[in-house]
Amino acid sequence: MCGIIGVSDHKEAANIAFLGLYALQHRGEEAAGIASYDGKNIHLTKSAGLVADAFDEDSLKSLKGKTAIGHTRYSTTGSSNSKNIQPFLVTHRNRPMAVAHNGNLTNTEELYRELEGEGSIFQTTMDSEIVVHLLAKARNGNMKKWFIEVLSQLKGAFSLVFLVEDVLVGARDPQGFRPLCLGKIDQSYILASESCALDLIHAEFIREIDPGEIVFIKNNKIESAYLPGWKKAKKAHCIFENIYFARPDSNIFNENIYQVRKRLGRQLAKEHPVKADFAMSIPDSGNYAAIGYAQELDLPFEVGIIRNHYIGRTFIQPSQFLRDFRVRVKLNPIKNVLKGKKIVVIEDSIVRGTTSRGRIEDLKRAGAKEIHMRISCPPIKFPCFYGIDFPSKKELIASSKSVRETARFIKVDSLAYLSLKGMLSVMKNSGNYCDACFTGKYPVPIPTNTSKYLLEGA
Amino acid sequence: MCGIIGVSDHKEAANIAFLGLYALQHRGEEAAGIASYDGKNIHLTKSAGLVADAFDEDSLKSLKGKTAIGHTRYSTTGSSNSKNIQPFLVTHRNRPMAVAHNGNLTNTEELYRELEGEGSIFQTTMDSEIVVHLLAKARNGNMKKWFIEVLSQLKGAFSLVFLVEDVLVGARDPQGFRPLCLGKIDQSYILASESCALDLIHAEFIREIDPGEIVFIKNNKIESAYLPGWKKAKKAHCIFENIYFARPDSNIFNENIYQVRKRLGRQLAKEHPVKADFAMSIPDSGNYAAIGYAQELDLPFEVGIIRNHYIGRTFIQPSQFLRDFRVRVKLNPIKNVLKGKKIVVIEDSIVRGTTSRGRIEDLKRAGAKEIHMRISCPPIKFPCFYGIDFPSKKELIASSKSVRETARFIKVDSLAYLSLKGMLSVMKNSGNYCDACFTGKYPVPIPTNTSKYLLEGA
Amino acid sequence: MCGIIGVSDHKEAANIAFLGLYALQHRGEEAAGIASYDGKNIHLTKSAGLVADAFDEDSLKSLKGKTAIGHTRYSTTGSSNSKNIQPFLVTHRNRPMAVAHNGNLTNTEELYRELEGEGSIFQTTMDSEIVVHLLAKARNGNMKKWFIEVLSQLKGAFSLVFLVEDVLVGARDPQGFRPLCLGKIDQSYILASESCALDLIHAEFIREIDPGEIVFIKNNKIESAYLPGWKKAKKAHCIFENIYFARPDSNIFNENIYQVRKRLGRQLAKEHPVKADFAMSIPDSGNYAAIGYAQELDLPFEVGIIRNHYIGRTFIQPSQFLRDFRVRVKLNPIKNVLKGKKIVVIEDSIVRGTTSRGRIEDLKRAGAKEIHMRISCPPIKFPCFYGIDFPSKKELIASSKSVRETARFIKVDSLAYLSLKGMLSVMKNSGNYCDACFTGKYPVPIPTNTSKYLLEGA
Amino acid sequence: MCGIIGVSDHKEAANIAFLGLYALQHRGEEAAGIASYDGKNIHLTKSAGLVADAFDEDSLKSLKGKTAIGHTRYSTTGSSNSKNIQPFLVTHRNRPMAVAHNGNLTNTEELYRELEGEGSIFQTTMDSEIVVHLLAKARNGNMKKWFIEVLSQLKGAFSLVFLVEDVLVGARDPQGFRPLCLGKIDQSYILASESCALDLIHAEFIREIDPGEIVFIKNNKIESAYLPGWKKAKKAHCIFENIYFARPDSNIFNENIYQVRKRLGRQLAKEHPVKADFAMSIPDSGNYAAIGYAQELDLPFEVGIIRNHYIGRTFIQPSQFLRDFRVRVKLNPIKNVLKGKKIVVIEDSIVRGTTSRGRIEDLKRAGAKEIHMRISCPPIKFPCFYGIDFPSKKELIASSKSVRETARFIKVDSLAYLSLKGMLSVMKNSGNYCDACFTGKYPVPIPTNTSKYLLEGA
Repeated sequence: MCGIIGVSDHKEAANIAFLGLYALQHRGEEAAGIASYDGKNIHLTKSAGLVADAFDEDSLKSLKGKTAIGHTRYSTTGSSNSKNIQPFLVTHRNRPMAVAHNGNLTNTEELYRELEGEGSIFQTTMDSEIVVHLLAKARNGNMKKWFIEVLSQLKGAFSLVFLVEDVLVGARDPQGFRPLCLGKIDQSYILASESCALDLIHAEFIREIDPGEIVFIKNNKIESAYLPGWKKAKKAHCIFENIYFARPDSNIFNENIYQVRKRLGRQLAKEHPVKADFAMSIPDSGNYAAIGYAQELDLPFEVGIIRNHYIGRTFIQPSQFLRDFRVRVKLNPIKNVLKGKKIVVIEDSIVRGTTSRGRIEDLKRAGAKEIHMRISCPPIKFPCFYGIDFPSKKELIASSKSVRETARFIKVDSLAYLSLKGMLSVMKNSGNYCDACFTGKYPVPIPTNTSKYLLEGA
Repeated sequence: MCGIIGVSDHKEAANIAFLGLYALQHRGEEAAGIASYDGKNIHLTKSAGLVADAFDEDSLKSLKGKTAIGHTRYSTTGSSNSKNIQPFLVTHRNRPMAVAHNGNLTNTEELYRELEGEGSIFQTTMDSEIVVHLLAKARNGNMKKWFIEVLSQLKGAFSLVFLVEDVLVGARDPQGFRPLCLGKIDQSYILASESCALDLIHAEFIREIDPGEIVFIKNNKIESAYLPGWKKAKKAHCIFENIYFARPDSNIFNENIYQVRKRLGRQLAKEHPVKADFAMSIPDSGNYAAIGYAQELDLPFEVGIIRNHYIGRTFIQPSQFLRDFRVRVKLNPIKNVLKGKKIVVIEDSIVRGTTSRGRIEDLKRAGAKEIHMRISCPPIKFPCFYGIDFPSKKELIASSKSVRETARFIKVDSLAYLSLKGMLSVMKNSGNYCDACFTGKYPVPIPTNTSKYLLEGA
Repeated sequence: MCGIIGVSDHKEAANIAFLGLYALQHRGEEAAGIASYDGKNIHLTKSAGLVADAFDEDSLKSLKGKTAIGHTRYSTTGSSNSKNIQPFLVTHRNRPMAVAHNGNLTNTEELYRELEGEGSIFQTTMDSEIVVHLLAKARNGNMKKWFIEVLSQLKGAFSLVFLVEDVLVGARDPQGFRPLCLGKIDQSYILASESCALDLIHAEFIREIDPGEIVFIKNNKIESAYLPGWKKAKKAHCIFENIYFARPDSNIFNENIYQVRKRLGRQLAKEHPVKADFAMSIPDSGNYAAIGYAQELDLPFEVGIIRNHYIGRTFIQPSQFLRDFRVRVKLNPIKNVLKGKKIVVIEDSIVRGTTSRGRIEDLKRAGAKEIHMRISCPPIKFPCFYGIDFPSKKELIASSKSVRETARFIKVDSLAYLSLKGMLSVMKNSGNYCDACFTGKYPVPIPTNTSKYLLEGA
Repeated sequence: MCGIIGVSDHKEAANIAFLGLYALQHRGEEAAGIASYDGKNIHLTKSAGLVADAFDEDSLKSLKGKTAIGHTRYSTTGSSNSKNIQPFLVTHRNRPMAVAHNGNLTNTEELYRELEGEGSIFQTTMDSEIVVHLLAKARNGNMKKWFIEVLSQLKGAFSLVFLVEDVLVGARDPQGFRPLCLGKIDQSYILASESCALDLIHAEFIREIDPGEIVFIKNNKIESAYLPGWKKAKKAHCIFENIYFARPDSNIFNENIYQVRKRLGRQLAKEHPVKADFAMSIPDSGNYAAIGYAQELDLPFEVGIIRNHYIGRTFIQPSQFLRDFRVRVKLNPIKNVLKGKKIVVIEDSIVRGTTSRGRIEDLKRAGAKEIHMRISCPPIKFPCFYGIDFPSKKELIASSKSVRETARFIKVDSLAYLSLKGMLSVMKNSGNYCDACFTGKYPVPIPTNTSKYLLEGA
C-alpha cells in the first residue's frame, strides 16, 4: 500500500503535499518523496523513513513551484532499496516527468520484458518506472490520447498521479481498487488517496475520481478522459480499506470509515453477542468496531489496554528474559480493569494469528478471567494481488485452520468472525467491492507463473 | 517533570533501564540518559531526543554491568543545554557516582551559593549536581549516615536514584511529592517513577518507596533509612499526576490512574450533567474521564476526533494559509459524526485555554451544533514549584478569568469544572495531596525572591 | 579530468581499487566510486568527496567479488550532481554492467539526441551513460564485435573501464589522449590511469594500453581487439599531463614525469637564465622544474615557501581584513630566506594569472627584493575539449595579454615562458602530442555550435 | 604537544583564532577548540578532528566577541576522551574562565590529590583543569597577585593562555620549555605558540613571551608580571622543536627553523660526508636538512620520494597481501630516479626505527643500489616529561641498540648521527636548551613513582 497526493497551481504546493503525506502516513511508513515543478525546473526530495523524517525545512524550501506530487511508501520485505522510493522522475527530451503510484499491476513482468527487449534500461523495479517508459515511447502531442494509449496497457490496481511539466494528471484503474479523491482549496485542485488529507489543510472535498477516469489539471481547470471499457468494468473497491486500512476520519468509496466500522461492530454484535462484563478493543484499529459492538449490546466500553504513543526503534538484542518486549512496549493491559473479569475483545481482523495470540496472553497475565474474541470481518484466506501486503496463503491462519482451531491457537474462550453477508450488508454499495481475500474470487486475472514479489508494486 | 529508573544486580541492567525509560517517555521527551556500572568502570550515554532516538544498539551494548540508572527529561524553555541531560556523573577520589532526579528543590540557590563560595566549580545548572557536590564534601565511611546528612539539607520535591559504584540508592522527599516505586524481577530490585515501567518488563510491583525513605540496594538485598522528621511530615502527593501526568495504566499513590480518572469523570457527570447526543473527549488524555462521564449518564461515548499517531517534526514556515496546521496534524474531527449534533466534550484540564479554544473551533467547523465542555479538575490558578511545568500565574487562564469568561474565550455553549471537594472525594487518601495549583496553599515554603527558572529543576 | 582503475580476478579487488583511487586522487577530488562483481551480484558505492571520505570500512566490505572498477571525479562547476558520480551502473536483461570514464567525447550531443528520439531515458548527463545505452541497443553475443561496434561511434578523448559481469574491459581512443596502463599483481591484471596506482599496491607495470585498443580480461587472461583505423590515427597525447596533471612518480606516454619536468626546467634555464641568489618553486607542482632549472645553472635551490599539509575547508566569511587568507593558509613564504634576495621562481604554467599574482605579492611582502618568474611551458591560449578543465578562452590570460603585459599584471621584474619547440624537444616522441592549448590546432574536430559544458564529460 | 592561540580586542577574534589553529595544526591533529567572550557570555566550540573538521561556518559564527583563545590537541594513545578537548571552560561565581595549555606539568598528581581531598570534583584528566581549580580557590581581587600565586605552584612545562572575561592572559614556565610569542594586528595583541600563526593573518611579530612571564592583555594594552625566581631559572628550550616539531617557516627561540635545519644539515655533511650520486630526504620533515647537506657537499638534491597530499583515513583490514600499504599510500619512491644509484638519505631523527626501516625497504625495492642514512640530530635515548610524545625508553631504538646495530636493523649501507656538540654549535644560544632526550639530564625533576601517562598533559 501507498499514499499519493497531487497539488496544482498553488503557491504552497510542496507544503500542501507534505501535509497531505503526513495525513496519509498510515498508508506507508517506509519512505516518502515529493516532486515539484516551478515552470522551469523540476525538484525532487525523497528519503527513507517517516514523512516527518524524510523532509526538513531546507528540503521543503527547495521544492519550488506551484505544482507538486507526493508519495508515501509501505514497507515490504526485501525491497527497501532507496532507488525504489517514489515519486519516480525522469527528464526525456528536456521535459521532466514524475509519477507516484498506489496499487499493484498484474501485468508488470510482461511489460517489463517487452520494453527491455527494445533496449530500455530500467533504474528501479517499480511499476511506476514501467509507466514512464511506456509514456516515453508513446510520446504524442495530444495529451489525452497519449495517456489513454499508455494507461490502457496497464492491468490490475492503480491510482496514479503525474507531473508532466505544469500539468497535474490523476488516474484510477477501471475497477477502482484503490481510492483517489479530488479536493479544492482556494481555486486550486488537489488529488489525494483519502479525504483525511484534504481535512488537514482545510480543503473542500469535491468528489472521488471515477474508476477508469483520467483527469488533467492546469491553471485551476480540470478536464477528464476515460479509459476504454471503463463504464462496463465491474467495480472492485478494496473492502479491506474499509475494514482496516483507511483512516477512520476518511470518506472513501462514498462511506465514512468510522461509521462503517461502527456498523461492522453492531452487525458483529447481532451475529455473535457475548454477555461480558465489558467490551474492549485492541487499540487503535479495533476501537471503532468495539464501540459499535458495545452500543448494540449496551455493554460498558472500557479501555483495557493502554497504547504507548512513543513508539520508535528498539535496539535490544532478544534474550529469553526480554522476549516479546517489543509487543508490550506498544500496548500495556491495565490490571485493575481486567482482573477477574469476563471480557469480549473486538479486533478488526486476524492475519497470521501470532499478534492476537500475544495480546490474549498479555490480557490473561493481567488477570482477565474469561476472554471472548470477535472479529469484524470474515476469515482472511487468500493473498492480495492488488496492493495489500498480506503474506502468502500458507501464512494466513484462516487458510489452514478452522475457526475452532484458530481459537485454540490464540487461546481464547471463544472466537467468532463476522459473516461475509453481514459484512457486505452494512456497506452502501455492497456489489462494488473486491472481497477476494475472503472468497478467492479475483476480479482481475492474476499472474499465474509469477511470484507476486518478483517485481515490487507499491 | 522527569522519569527515573534504577536497576540492581541484573545482567540486562541497561536494557531494562532502556525499556523502563521507554515506558516513562510521557514524563519527559526532551532527552534521555543511562549510566551503568560493571564493577570497575561506569558507563554513560545521554542524548537529546526521545528515548528511541537517544540510544542505539551500540550505545546500549556499551552500557555494561549489572547496575544502572536512567533518566528521561522534560522539555523546559531555554535550558535545553546538552550538559543538563541526566544522569549526572562524576568521579571523585577514583570512585564514580551518578544521580538522576525527578522534582524541583526549593532551596537550590542557597545551596549553590554556599558551595561556590567554598571553591566548588559547577558544570551544569541542575539540582542533581548540587546533590553530588554535597555528597563529595560529606563523604563518609557509613553510607546511611552520609546520605541522611546530605539529603536532609534538601528542601522541596525530589525522587532520586543514585549509582554509588555497585550500590543502587533511591530516595524520596518526606512529603512524597513525586512517585517512586519498587519492583522485582527474578531476584533483582528495580526502582521506577511509575509502575507502568515495571509492567513492560514483567517485573512484580512490590511497594512504593515511603516519603522520606532512602533505600540502599546491593546483591539483591535492600536496606532502608529514613530522613529525620519523615513521619510527622504532612504528605503532599502531586494531585496533577493523578489528573493528567501519570500514565493511565500506572498505579501510583496507591491508586490505579485509569480508575481514578473514570471516577473523576463520573463525579463530574454528577456535578455537571449535560443532556447531549453523545459524550466525547479530546484524545487521549481526556478519554478516561469521558468514558466515566458517559457511563454515569448513560450517554453514548463516541470518537469524535481521530488522533494521528505519526506526529513528528513539521518544518513548514507558517503562512496565513497554513495557520494552525500543527494542531490539525495531530487531531482530526470526524465530520460525519459531529454534524448537527449536541455534544459534551470532556477534557482533563485547562491551562492557558488556547489549545482548548483551537479544538472547539475545529469541532464547530466540522459541524457540531452545540458544544458543552466539562473539565475533570478545578480551575488551575497557581504555578507549581515542585516540578510541574505550569506557566506563570499570569498565563493561567483561570487565574485571571472567571468560568463564564473562560467559556466565552473558548467559545463553548457551556463550561463547568469539577469541584475541589468533588475531586478529592474520589481519591482514597484525600488528605495526602498537594492541591496548591488549585488553592495556592503551598505545603513547602517556596523561594521568595527568586524566579523559579533561575536554576532548572527537572 | 578523472582517474580510473580496474581490477580482475583478485580476492582483494575492491581494496585494490580503493588504493588505486587513493593514488589517483590528484586526477579528481570531487567524488569517487567503486563497483564490484561477485559472480552473482554487482555492488556499488559512490559518494561525493575525497577517496578517503567517500568510503568507509563497511562500504569497502560490502564491495564483494573478485572484479572491480573505480573512478575518481574532477570538480567542474555547476554539475556536482550526485547522480553524476561514476562508475555508472545498470542492469539490463538481468545482466549488470558498469563503466568508468576519463576524457571528453566531442560527439556527445549528437549521440544523446539520437538515443532519446528512440525512447531511451537518461538518468544522468554523463558521457558514460551514453556508452551504456549504445551497448544496450547493440547487445550481441560476440563481445569483441559488440564493443568495437559501439566504441567506434565515439569521438574525442576516452579511456574507459567496464565491468560486464565477470569480464573487465578497458579501452582507449585511437588518438591516445588520456593515459591508461596495464599492470599485474600475483596473476591478476590491473588497469589504471597512471602507473603510480600500480606502485602503491606493489603491482608490476606491464605496458600502456595502445591507442585504439580494447582489452578483455577474465580468468587471468587478456585478449585485445582494435578499433578500425587505429593504426593510421595520428597520436595526440595530452602534453599537459606531462607538464602539470600527472603525478611526478608516474610513468605515462613512455616517460617518467619527474624526469620530464626536470628536463623542462633545464631547457627553461637554457632559454631564459637568471643570475639570481637562488631558485625556488611554487610548491609542489613547480618543484621538479625548479630543481632542473637550479641544477642547469648551478644555482642554490631553496624552499622559499612552506606548504601547509593540513588543507581542508575554511568557513570564514571574507572580510577586508581577512582577504586572501585562503591563499596563505596553504603556502607561507619564509621571510628569513627571502629578505633582500634576488630570486627566480619557477612555475609549471599560468592559467588565469590571478593565483601567480597572489603568490608574487606574498613573496614581496616577505621581503624579496627582485623576482623573476619562469614558466616551464608556453603560454596557454586555447581551451581544451578533450578533458582538461581550462576556463574559456577569455579567461586565459595568455590569450588576451602579451608576455610583457602578463608580467606587469603579475608584478614580477621579469617573466619568460619555455618555447613550444623547447618543450617538445625534451619529450621522447615529440610528434605524438596534442598541443592544442598552446597552438589551437585541435587534432579531433570539436563541436561547433555547442557549449563544451552542455553535457558533462569527466 | 599542542598549539595555543589567544586574540584580544579584535572584532574577528574567533576567525583569527581559527586561522591561527590552522597554522598550528602540525602541533596537534586530534582535536581543536575555541572559546570566545563577547562582554557578556562566553562561547565554546570544540570537537575531535582536524581544525578544518572541528569547526564549520555556523560554529565560527556562534563564537561571538572580541577576545578568544584556541587550542589544537596532539593525539596520545588511550586518552582521546572528548571531555579532554581544550579550551577548558568553567563558570565560577557567575564569571566565566577558559584556559588552553601546551606542555606537561610534572607535579600534576600531587596537586590533583590535594584538591580532591578538599572536595573539588574534576571533570577531566587535564592539567589545565587543575590550574582552573587552583584559580577558583585562590580567587583574589588583584589579578596579578592571583595568577602569580597560582602559577607558582605549577612545575614542569607550560605555555598557557587564559580568558578571564575580557582579559587575555598568557604565561610561560620559567624554563621556557615551550614557545609562546606575541604579535600585533591593527591595534590588537595576539599570543601564539609559533610565529607562523602570525604570518597567516599578516600580523606583526613583536617578541617572544619571556620564560616566567605572565602577560595581561585588555583594551589593546599589555602588562607583564613575573613568577618568583624566573630570572635565575636556567633556560631549557625544547631542542626537538628546532629539529622536528616546529614549522620550518616559524621563528621560535630566536631562530628561524628552516635556517636552523639547513645549518644542522650542513654540520651533518661536515661530520659525516658521503660521496653519493645525489642527496635526498624523507619528505617533508627531512627536506631542509637535506638541502643544507647537499649544498655543503655540492651534491645534487633530488626528490626521490613523492608525497601524496591526499592522506586521510584508510579502512582496509590488513592482510598479508596489502601489508604496509599505509606507509606507501603517503610516500612513493620514483624508480626512474633511484634505479642503480648510490644515495644519501637525510632524516631529521629516528625514534623507534620501524618507520625508517620501511622507507629504506621501499627505496631498495625501487632500485637504489647503495643507501647511506644521515640523521640531523644525535640518537634519542630518553623519554620526554615536558610534552613531546616520545615512547617509553624501551621503545627508543637508540636506547637499546648501538648505531651499528641500528644500521643493521634499518638495513642501510651506513648510518651516522649528528653529534651533540655539532648540533648545539649551530644554535644561537646553545646553553639555553633542554637536551634531555639525548643526554638524560632532566632540567626539572621528573615524577619518580608515577607513570608519565597517569594524567594527560597536552
